[in-house]
Amino acid sequence: MLVVMNANATEGEVAGVVRVIESLGLRAHVMPGANRTAIGITGNKGVISLQHFENLPGVAEAIRVTKPYKLITLDLKQERTIVDVGGAKIGNSSLAMIAGPCAIENRKQAFAVAEVVKGVGAKFFRGGAFKPRTSPYAFAGLGEDALKILVEIRERFGLKIVSEALDEPGVDLVEKYADMIQVGARNMQNYTLLRRVGRSKLPVLLKRGMAATLEEWLLAAEYVMAEGNYQVVLCERGVRTFAQHTRNTLDLAAVPAVRRISHLPIIIDASHGTGKNYMVTPLARAGVAVGADGLMIEVHCKPEEALSDGAQALTLDEFEQMAREVRAIHDVIS
Amino acid sequence: MLVVMNANATEGEVAGVVRVIESLGLRAHVMPGANRTAIGITGNKGVISLQHFENLPGVAEAIRVTKPYKLITLDLKQERTIVDVGGAKIGNSSLAMIAGPCAIENRKQAFAVAEVVKGVGAKFFRGGAFKPRTSPYAFAGLGEDALKILVEIRERFGLKIVSEALDEPGVDLVEKYADMIQVGARNMQNYTLLRRVGRSKLPVLLKRGMAATLEEWLLAAEYVMAEGNYQVVLCERGVRTFAQHTRNTLDLAAVPAVRRISHLPIIIDASHGTGKNYMVTPLARAGVAVGADGLMIEVHCKPEEALSDGAQALTLDEFEQMAREVRAIHDVIS
Amino acid sequence: MLVVMNANATEGEVAGVVRVIESLGLRAHVMPGANRTAIGITGNKGVISLQHFENLPGVAEAIRVTKPYKLITLDLKQERTIVDVGGAKIGNSSLAMIAGPCAIENRKQAFAVAEVVKGVGAKFFRGGAFKPRTSPYAFAGLGEDALKILVEIRERFGLKIVSEALDEPGVDLVEKYADMIQVGARNMQNYTLLRRVGRSKLPVLLKRGMAATLEEWLLAAEYVMAEGNYQVVLCERGVRTFAQHTRNTLDLAAVPAVRRISHLPIIIDASHGTGKNYMVTPLARAGVAVGADGLMIEVHCKPEEALSDGAQALTLDEFEQMAREVRAIHDVIS
Amino acid sequence: MLVVMNANATEGEVAGVVRVIESLGLRAHVMPGANRTAIGITGNKGVISLQHFENLPGVAEAIRVTKPYKLITLDLKQERTIVDVGGAKIGNSSLAMIAGPCAIENRKQAFAVAEVVKGVGAKFFRGGAFKPRTSPYAFAGLGEDALKILVEIRERFGLKIVSEALDEPGVDLVEKYADMIQVGARNMQNYTLLRRVGRSKLPVLLKRGMAATLEEWLLAAEYVMAEGNYQVVLCERGVRTFAQHTRNTLDLAAVPAVRRISHLPIIIDASHGTGKNYMVTPLARAGVAVGADGLMIEVHCKPEEALSDGAQALTLDEFEQMAREVRAIHDVIS
Repeated sequence: MLVVMNANATEGEVAGVVRVIESLGLRAHVMPGANRTAIGITGNKGVISLQHFENLPGVAEAIRVTKPYKLITLDLKQERTIVDVGGAKIGNSSLAMIAGPCAIENRKQAFAVAEVVKGVGAKFFRGGAFKPRTSPYAFAGLGEDALKILVEIRERFGLKIVSEALDEPGVDLVEKYADMIQVGARNMQNYTLLRRVGRSKLPVLLKRGMAATLEEWLLAAEYVMAEGNYQVVLCERGVRTFAQHTRNTLDLAAVPAVRRISHLPIIIDASHGTGKNYMVTPLARAGVAVGADGLMIEVHCKPEEALSDGAQALTLDEFEQMAREVRAIHDVIS
Repeated sequence: MLVVMNANATEGEVAGVVRVIESLGLRAHVMPGANRTAIGITGNKGVISLQHFENLPGVAEAIRVTKPYKLITLDLKQERTIVDVGGAKIGNSSLAMIAGPCAIENRKQAFAVAEVVKGVGAKFFRGGAFKPRTSPYAFAGLGEDALKILVEIRERFGLKIVSEALDEPGVDLVEKYADMIQVGARNMQNYTLLRRVGRSKLPVLLKRGMAATLEEWLLAAEYVMAEGNYQVVLCERGVRTFAQHTRNTLDLAAVPAVRRISHLPIIIDASHGTGKNYMVTPLARAGVAVGADGLMIEVHCKPEEALSDGAQALTLDEFEQMAREVRAIHDVIS
Repeated sequence: MLVVMNANATEGEVAGVVRVIESLGLRAHVMPGANRTAIGITGNKGVISLQHFENLPGVAEAIRVTKPYKLITLDLKQERTIVDVGGAKIGNSSLAMIAGPCAIENRKQAFAVAEVVKGVGAKFFRGGAFKPRTSPYAFAGLGEDALKILVEIRERFGLKIVSEALDEPGVDLVEKYADMIQVGARNMQNYTLLRRVGRSKLPVLLKRGMAATLEEWLLAAEYVMAEGNYQVVLCERGVRTFAQHTRNTLDLAAVPAVRRISHLPIIIDASHGTGKNYMVTPLARAGVAVGADGLMIEVHCKPEEALSDGAQALTLDEFEQMAREVRAIHDVIS
Repeated sequence: MLVVMNANATEGEVAGVVRVIESLGLRAHVMPGANRTAIGITGNKGVISLQHFENLPGVAEAIRVTKPYKLITLDLKQERTIVDVGGAKIGNSSLAMIAGPCAIENRKQAFAVAEVVKGVGAKFFRGGAFKPRTSPYAFAGLGEDALKILVEIRERFGLKIVSEALDEPGVDLVEKYADMIQVGARNMQNYTLLRRVGRSKLPVLLKRGMAATLEEWLLAAEYVMAEGNYQVVLCERGVRTFAQHTRNTLDLAAVPAVRRISHLPIIIDASHGTGKNYMVTPLARAGVAVGADGLMIEVHCKPEEALSDGAQALTLDEFEQMAREVRAIHDVIS
């Protein structure tokens, strides 16, 4: 159910509707928009009567939701969501660039990369502290030590920190040190984790699962929002197909498809989306051209020595060149 | 690294090798076999010298492992693993039948199904207490209440209980009440969960991820074993493809493929593997014919009223008929 | 449109309906069944009025077809089609075994294989004269010379000959020498070829395309039948997925899925469906268990010297063993 | 085998090498480049001795080819191929725009679309005369009548005509009327058709098959070139995956992947590659940004009345807008 307030409804009237919702044992999700406020309702087991709301002061209409989504949809909120990451924005007219190494390996590596990331005008630094690895014997990240290095990078360069959490204790740590919590592809349907980040104060970067349909991905975002965290950025990072010339097949049509349904921002991970260094820049250009709100790019000072995913990392020089190219495209399409 | 003991090596000699391994800060995984004992070594960051082991008493040879796996392989253990689930076996010459409703909905439903499951001679009862659901608004299981009903079923019918855990608190509960912990397809790469069940005393049923390669799946099993739990049963449940006439495409070739590499048992989930009631019995027959160690089948007393996955559940009558058919096939191929 | 005749309609009444259909410039497809005859109508550009037919003598009812298929469906013909291949049957209660080398390489090889194929009681011999090869530089078959060898095999062993045609001149030759025309996976949507075999007197073995949906495959059969050739056997041979442990992923659920919609027989190609010798026998067993009408199996006297697809061919001994195993399963399920 | 001539080799020396090749019963493919001419050799059954060529006048070196390709590769020709379509070019620095309706339905529709296609500065007009349709009962094109309309369009607007052929008689007709022969996705492995267009004087537009790997696609181009037609343009049009929000998943990484291996131009079909009108423009922008040599776009004056594929056609207004957007991107990346 969705309650749409009148354009001139007062805060008091909104609060009144929320009180009624809560008195029914349900949860109210208030979504202010440019022209009107809408209130999504979750928590109902069965059908709620429209009559509870239609005659409340300030209510324009109450609408039954027939789609599987309630909170991610344009039905609830027509304006695109702008996500605030420690003061920097994702989803406004600028191009959000999130770059950095796959994993934080040491202070020196991280700083060398951060300097170049900052240099191209990017606002976000990524770096894995906890790495989900296919093999139990592979390097799995430096953990809290990596997060401490990331804090130094924020202090030194003013970059906002994006880092992945794999479980609830990991979320506790990422919350402590970083500005945005990444949920990786393998965990897109880890509902315990989704609910936990849904209760976080930090915004969430939600990667698409390796074989997730659009609906499954949006419902994963719905899990986060249903807990009250509306600061969600979607990230297309390629899906698994029969094709073998790339690590994953980057599905850029996800961008217009998401735009049709949801107010949430969407960015492109051109590094995992290709898995091959020489493809990252062309696909990053394509990601900007298709209309994404930003890019996630892996950069390494010495890709050939990277402890993880070196094959898909750009060198510092390549990254600077890519940044120039994507900026030029962003300028002409916006 | 893998240390193979002489056929007549004593327990003391095995213990001696284990002590050397642990003194190097590594972990020893002792795998007794019919003819010889082998010891897998994990925990090394780099290469270990073969010389540490080659001249120890009782050692036949030390072998460097070049494959990504160490513990799941036939290299380590040539005899097939027989998993003990509360006294009942999976992986021996009999056909393990794990059946029950998708979710435990209430005591009456569970008992009605269990009676028929017991009636056909099955030894294992499945029933979801914690259901991973694509939508945050769908029925997610009765939780601990469901587990308590499952305990009653074990007491009444002597069936061994298999139930899924989605996170660490869930594992605690499943451990308390059930006989085998299921890790679902969505969690196949939830490494925190895999490590937790790896530290459990209960055997683990590990479903294949929706788009998992054979290697990724076996490495997920390796995660469990690396923590010391060697009682792992693999479960093929279909993979995601372009095909739309089934919910998933059941990949029965996984059975001979796993047999080529691993000593672990493998069973077939013909319910999720098809998603359609009328396909379950033919595919269950095929699963037995291809050589699987068992079947997982969803049964419901009233599929049309099921709170989850009703479309793929067999009725009680259909289940009895299926059991007869698969038994006949198992008899001729074994 | 579909016209169903009364159970006791005379041949004259059927002929009368056909005349009316043809007088409208349309094509009549008469399908006699155990209890009634039905007549499918094709060739209409728009909607035909039911009234043309409803009151004709012998007509029980005229039914508008809303599905994309007209001729392959159970709506038109409830009894399963039994296809006659030079006197031997596919689709009756027996298990049709079509075996032989991928390509006919020489007389000696073909005879060595044929002797064993005959020996296990199979009735059909396959052997490629025209091989579609991914590379223009690979061995593409012996052409007409191969067909002449196949004729000798029919004369010597009484086996019915199944061979693939790639184009219209190829169909002319296969028609001249063989008993059944195979249309391969790559040509499943080669409509010119489908129409040509639809005008042949020989039955057609129609393989599923590498990424064909069920509907596309059945519509390919509809192409053949719309030209008047109703002797079509479907062959599932695996589809392309992300999985890398097999050449193709054998989709055995296609068997019950086809049975739900169509009266046409369906067989399993366990050789292309796996691409690996050691998987052929288990998947052949599974194909029989799932309920297929037959199997297609590649056999070679010396797989390691085969000019094409040696990796998936069974040796003569393996083939004999497989034949025993599948027969045992067929006996218990039929 | 590949023979590389000296930079200053004379035409006579090239002809001399060709004579030796032909005297061995082989075929010579002369590929002049900016700095040197190379000669590919096909037709050998086994290995050819390098010694036949190494000492011939003008020869720099003879190289054994270990890859599956001989003629499509950068090894043979380092300069990108520029394909000449009736005087207009594909593969040079300009963006080739091939636009028009899916099928030619009548003169009026075709002219209305052509006027707008011409208006945006495009040089190529597409329009189906022979349409491969999944159902035998669907509109399959006007055949030769459509081709005659296309000729009128060429005369009136100066647009070069691109049209699909499905079989050898179709190629005869397309050759008679059009400027470029399209081979569709369903026919990518129709080797009889590939060989036929390989013997044509017209350039060939070769679409990627629905589930074709990069290697299979390039080998299909190799089939065409092996017959002597080196004027081949590759066209990525999306591949079949599990994703359901698009008709096909457009694999833009194919562009850098092809560039790494081949000198052939590659364009993007954003219409089939998405199947949805509202996605065509964003994906066309992405296709240009990723570096494709051109675009293929379906345009219709009244998409809602189109006899085929209306859902993916742009309206005339949308097409003009798209053309402006992609030109702006092309300007900044080239």
